[in-house]
Amino acid sequence: MSMELYDLATADPKLRFSPYCWRAKMALAHKGLSWEEIPCAFTDKDRLPQPNAGTVPVLVDDGNMVSDSWKIAEYLDERYPDKPLFACPESKSTALLVKFWTERTLQPCITRMAVGDFMSTLHDKDKPYFRETREKRIGMPIEQCMSRREQARETFAAALEPLRAMLAEQPYVAGAQPAYADYIVFGALQWMRCGSPFPALRKDDPVFGYRERLLDLFDGFGRKAYCREELV
Amino acid sequence: MSMELYDLATADPKLRFSPYCWRAKMALAHKGLSWEEIPCAFTDKDRLPQPNAGTVPVLVDDGNMVSDSWKIAEYLDERYPDKPLFACPESKSTALLVKFWTERTLQPCITRMAVGDFMSTLHDKDKPYFRETREKRIGMPIEQCMSRREQARETFAAALEPLRAMLAEQPYVAGAQPAYADYIVFGALQWMRCGSPFPALRKDDPVFGYRERLLDLFDGFGRKAYCREELV
Repeated sequence: MSMELYDLATADPKLRFSPYCWRAKMALAHKGLSWEEIPCAFTDKDRLPQPNAGTVPVLVDDGNMVSDSWKIAEYLDERYPDKPLFACPESKSTALLVKFWTERTLQPCITRMAVGDFMSTLHDKDKPYFRETREKRIGMPIEQCMSRREQARETFAAALEPLRAMLAEQPYVAGAQPAYADYIVFGALQWMRCGSPFPALRKDDPVFGYRERLLDLFDGFGRKAYCREELV
Repeated sequence: MSMELYDLATADPKLRFSPYCWRAKMALAHKGLSWEEIPCAFTDKDRLPQPNAGTVPVLVDDGNMVSDSWKIAEYLDERYPDKPLFACPESKSTALLVKFWTERTLQPCITRMAVGDFMSTLHDKDKPYFRETREKRIGMPIEQCMSRREQARETFAAALEPLRAMLAEQPYVAGAQPAYADYIVFGALQWMRCGSPFPALRKDDPVFGYRERLLDLFDGFGRKAYCREELV
């Protein structure tokens, strides 16, 4: 039986932008594995296999159920050691800082640039849950946050400066070839790219070129993903 | 002959706070090597071995001269492969993002908290050079910057959030044991700790505990460093 990956659903069955699910999908593609995706709305938690933490992604493989994108990466490296996602324990530990940099520094900027766009794509039944949890997180009404998105873009551009400087020396966080640390960052960039028409990156930004390289991986797997609007 | 390390001098021969030199010193201590330090003021560049890039640290070892803290780490791992600073090529590449995160996100916060303190420790002959280059970098007079240091401390606390979250899961960036990625971050923390009495970290901050662990390494090598004032 093929693997199953529970992915975050929006109202449009084609549109899947969860950054954590993108990490898992890129990890599976990196391994050359195939999987079936099961879209699951925010308020459809009871459709997830039991017991669950109420979050996606969830991977079901050969009777094993793994929740949490990081644990999925660990599981895949243990169970399918070819084409490792982490080359050594130290690179995995260092990638954990990249994970938290992405989650605590980059992703909040993305929320502030696009939370209203993300909400508008959801099933109506998901919207009250989404508004409540996100407004608590950002400390203001979603509409007010969206009125300040240009400022958030400046903060985002500044937050990317370490990555930009690194890209002047090597093409990927993992070095000459991409690995899981890159899929973490890609998850965030792809979330923004698919879920919002707001132009977050300038085309002349080295981070734009980095995203392009990641979109080209695995026969353009990331590039084939449906985006809300045609984007540059 | 013992190795020589050219280190940044202040007016007080005991006080050495360059973050880049601290990276090199921790790397040497990690390897269990011994070295002689040659203090060199900002405006004493002609005392560095020729040819040089005009920056410290510079390591001279057995006829080899290596400038730049990152290149020194690479040199030490090549020449003295025991107790590696980087466990594998991927962890080294990922550490490069940690390096730029430290330099582009953390260190600017430290400059904004303490640039006036740093200037006051220098030889008088260094001060005009220091003021000119740093004021250009921060875009305002040093005195104005210092009047806003409480704000800079808030920005610093927020910038450390990825590290703080990581520390809830593992004691060091490199994992269970420290390695070069940690010495990069330590360089920044030690720069602040030695060069300024301004309390940058709350004692209950996990980053404070992390710094404590790094200060204890190698028989308290970092802790023995002279600080401008007795600090908590």
